[in-house]
Amino acid sequence: MAQKPSIPKGTRDFTPAEVAKRNYIFETIRNQFAVFGFQPIETPSFENLDTLMGKYGDEGDRLIFKILNSGDYLRKVDPEVYKAKNASDLTPQISEKALRYDLTVPFARYVVMHQNEIDFPFKRYQIQPVWRADRPQKGRFREFYQCDADVVGAGSLLQEIEFIQLYDAVFGDLGLPKIRIKLNHRKILSGIAEVIGAADKLIPFTVALDKLDKIGEEGVIREMASNGISETAIQKAMPLFSMAKDEANPFELLSEFLKNSSVGKAGIADLQFIVDSIEKLNLVNSSLEVDVSLARGLNYYTGTIFEVAAPDGVQMGSIGGGGRYDDLTGIFGLKDLSGVGISFGLDRIYLVMEELGLFPETIDQSVQVLFANFGNREALAALPLLRVLRKNGVNTDLYPTDTKLQKQLKYANNRNIPYVVLLGKDELEQQSVVVKDMARGSQQTYPWKDLQQFADSL
Amino acid sequence: MAQKPSIPKGTRDFTPAEVAKRNYIFETIRNQFAVFGFQPIETPSFENLDTLMGKYGDEGDRLIFKILNSGDYLRKVDPEVYKAKNASDLTPQISEKALRYDLTVPFARYVVMHQNEIDFPFKRYQIQPVWRADRPQKGRFREFYQCDADVVGAGSLLQEIEFIQLYDAVFGDLGLPKIRIKLNHRKILSGIAEVIGAADKLIPFTVALDKLDKIGEEGVIREMASNGISETAIQKAMPLFSMAKDEANPFELLSEFLKNSSVGKAGIADLQFIVDSIEKLNLVNSSLEVDVSLARGLNYYTGTIFEVAAPDGVQMGSIGGGGRYDDLTGIFGLKDLSGVGISFGLDRIYLVMEELGLFPETIDQSVQVLFANFGNREALAALPLLRVLRKNGVNTDLYPTDTKLQKQLKYANNRNIPYVVLLGKDELEQQSVVVKDMARGSQQTYPWKDLQQFADSL
Repeated sequence: MAQKPSIPKGTRDFTPAEVAKRNYIFETIRNQFAVFGFQPIETPSFENLDTLMGKYGDEGDRLIFKILNSGDYLRKVDPEVYKAKNASDLTPQISEKALRYDLTVPFARYVVMHQNEIDFPFKRYQIQPVWRADRPQKGRFREFYQCDADVVGAGSLLQEIEFIQLYDAVFGDLGLPKIRIKLNHRKILSGIAEVIGAADKLIPFTVALDKLDKIGEEGVIREMASNGISETAIQKAMPLFSMAKDEANPFELLSEFLKNSSVGKAGIADLQFIVDSIEKLNLVNSSLEVDVSLARGLNYYTGTIFEVAAPDGVQMGSIGGGGRYDDLTGIFGLKDLSGVGISFGLDRIYLVMEELGLFPETIDQSVQVLFANFGNREALAALPLLRVLRKNGVNTDLYPTDTKLQKQLKYANNRNIPYVVLLGKDELEQQSVVVKDMARGSQQTYPWKDLQQFADSL
Repeated sequence: MAQKPSIPKGTRDFTPAEVAKRNYIFETIRNQFAVFGFQPIETPSFENLDTLMGKYGDEGDRLIFKILNSGDYLRKVDPEVYKAKNASDLTPQISEKALRYDLTVPFARYVVMHQNEIDFPFKRYQIQPVWRADRPQKGRFREFYQCDADVVGAGSLLQEIEFIQLYDAVFGDLGLPKIRIKLNHRKILSGIAEVIGAADKLIPFTVALDKLDKIGEEGVIREMASNGISETAIQKAMPLFSMAKDEANPFELLSEFLKNSSVGKAGIADLQFIVDSIEKLNLVNSSLEVDVSLARGLNYYTGTIFEVAAPDGVQMGSIGGGGRYDDLTGIFGLKDLSGVGISFGLDRIYLVMEELGLFPETIDQSVQVLFANFGNREALAALPLLRVLRKNGVNTDLYPTDTKLQKQLKYANNRNIPYVVLLGKDELEQQSVVVKDMARGSQQTYPWKDLQQFADSL
C-alpha cells in the first residue's frame, strides 16, 4: 500500500531555485573566507555522545539528537536500569553517538585530535549542518547550516579588525544595504557590574540588559529586579540605557562611568583600538558601533563580542555574531588556546535577501539553451551541437521526448530558459538550426558549422 | 577532567587539504551536471522512519541509523512491548526518524511530495552524505557522500546517451586516463536466463555471473550450482564467459545466443542504438563496451545498466554506475514514472586521483600571500595593503602576532605559501614592502602605491 510521504517536522526539502540561492550565499561567504586566509575543515555529522554531552548546559543536552545503537542494542543494558524505565538513565546505555549540535565543540575536538599536524595560528572555516531537537517555529529549524570562521592560537586584536572587514566584505558582495556591526566587550560588562555593585549578578544583569531592544527600559528594570539585582544597582545602571541607544561614539561616557574599574578600562582600551583602526580602513558597506547592551553568549565569550544587525527596515534578529573566547580546547585537555570567531546566519540572510530582492534575477536560469525534440533522427543530429555549447560551458539540454512543440515551449517557459533551438525536418536537410529568443520572441538561423558564433554570443 | 577525544568508528575528519581535494572533485562533477541541464535539490538528513524502512531489504533495514525520540521517549511505550525487551519490537516505539541511507528513496519521496511544482521531465542532481551502520573497513565508511544525477519522466534512450557523454566529460575534466564505461541490459540478462532454462533463477544467476572478474569461471560455476542452477543450464551459459571477456563488439555472438528470446532481442536493440549513437559522437576520454556479466543492482534496474571501471592499472572497484528503473515513485503512490540515473563514487575517485597524482599541485596553496607581522604599528599599516590584494581575489593573510621572523617564515613554508611580504620598521618609513618569493628565494621591493602591480602579476 502506498504511503503518503511527509518529512519530519522542522526539516526542509530544498527545490532547485532554493538550492541555487543558498549556494549563492554559501559561495560568497566561502570565497571571502578563502580570500581572508581561512582554511576549510569538515567533521563527521555525528560525534561520540560524551564529546557533546555537558557542553551546552542541561537544555542543550536535552536538545541533542541521540542515535540508537545498531543491532541488538538491549543486550548490554543493565537489567536494573532497564527495569527502572527512566529515559535519561537508559539513554547512555542504548546510544553512543549523537548528531552535531554546533560547529564549535567539534572544532575544539578536531584541534585537540589534530594538534600535531596543525600549523598554529589556525584559521579555519566550517560550513556544515547542525541538528537541534528544538520546538520548530517560524525561522527555527531542526536541521540548519552554520557558517563559522575562527582563529585559534592568536591573541592579538588584529583578528577582531580582520573579522570586521570580513563581515564588511561578505555583506558587500551579497549586495545588502549598509549594515550595522555592533561591538561590546566582556570586560566592559564585568566593569559595569562591578561599578554598580552587582558583580555577583553579572550573568542575569547582562541577560536582562541584552533584551533592551525587545522589552524596553521598563522591561529590563523589571527583569533585573526579579533576578535579585538591588534597587540601588539598577539606579546606578540607568545611564547605560541611553548609552546603548545613543549611536554616537560612547567612549567618553563609558570612560567616565567605568573610571574606577580597571577591568572595565581594559575593555574600553581594546574597543578603542579596534574602532580607531577600523576608522582608518574605511568600511565600505557597514558601520561599526559600540553597544553596551550587547551580551550574546556571555557564558562563553571572554573578550570582544560582535553582532551584525539586519539592514534597517527589515524585521529580523541578528544575521551574524561572534566573539573572543579563552580556552576553547581545555575540555579536551589542550590548555591555554584562545580563539576568536564569527558566524553567519544563513537562514536569516536568505530571508533578508528575499525580502529586499537581492538575488540575481538569473539565479534560477539553470538551463540557458534547450534543444526541442522532433524525433530520434533530429535529436541524434542535435547531440553534436549540444556538445559545442556545453564545451563552452553553456548549460544546455535536449528535451527528452518528441512531444508537441507547444508543450516543449511551455516547459522552456516554466523553467525560465532563455533560448530554445529548433532542429526539425527542414533544418535537418539544410544542416541548420533556428534559435528562438524566448523573451524577445525573435528567431535567428545558424548553419551547424557556425553554432560556435551563437555560443560566443551568450 | 579532560576527555581524550575520538570520533565514532567509520567516520572521518577532513583536513583543509582533504576538503580542497574533495571540493575539487565535487565542483567538477557539479559543473558538468549543470552544463548537462541537471538541477540541484537537497533533502533533510533524516527522514521519517517509515519512509526508509522496507525499501532496502532486511539487511538495509538493519543498517539504517535510527534516531532516538527526544524527551521522555519511554512514556508512550507499550508496557507489554517494553517488558518483552526485544530490540526490533521496541525500536519503532522509541524512534520515529532515521538518517538517510541513500539519495534515491528521498528523491522518490521528494518527487511525490513536490509533483505539482515540478516541470517534468525532471533532471535532478543531488550531492549529500548518507549513513550506514555497516562494519567499517578499508574504503568503507559509515558516513560518505553520494553524487547522483537522475532523469524522471523520460523514457527515451537519449538519456542513456547523454549519461555516457556526461561520464566522459566529468572524468575528462578530472584528468583521469581513458576509462571504460561498461553497458548491459536487464532484458539481455532475462533473455539469457530464459534461453538456458533458468528464468526462475534470474537473480542468483546474474549475481553469480557478476562475480566473474573476482572469482573466475570456476567460481561462478560453483556458485551457480550451489544456488540450484542445473548442470544443463550452466553448460548452455558457457559461451557467455568468453563473451564477457571479449572486448570486441559482442552483438553478433549475443544475437545468435538470444535469437529465440524476444525479450533478449529487445535488450540488444536498445544497446545497439546506444552504441551506434555514441560511435558517431566520439567519446574523448572513455571507451564504451558491452559486458554481459554486468548485473549491479538488478533487483532495481529494469533497462540499461551502467558501470565505470577504474582506469587500467589501478586496483579499485567501479568508480561509477547506474541504470534505468521503472516505477521509482510507486512506493509513495505516484505510478508509472520511469527514471534513469547514474552516480559517481567520490571516495574511490579520490583514491584513484591520489594514486595517479592527478590533483593540481597548487590545490593546498590556500593562502597565496602572507604578510609577516613586525608589531602593531607595522601590522596596521599593512592592513590597507592586504585589502588591495584581497580585492583582487588574492587569498591573503597577516601573521597574527609579531613572533620571530624565522618562525613566521617557517609557518609560510609549512603552509606552502608562495609569497611573504615584509613590512618592517624601514619599509614603514619608506612606505614600501619587500615581497619574498619563497620558492626562488628572490626578493622585490614595491612602493605601497604600486602594490596593484604585484597583485596583477599573480
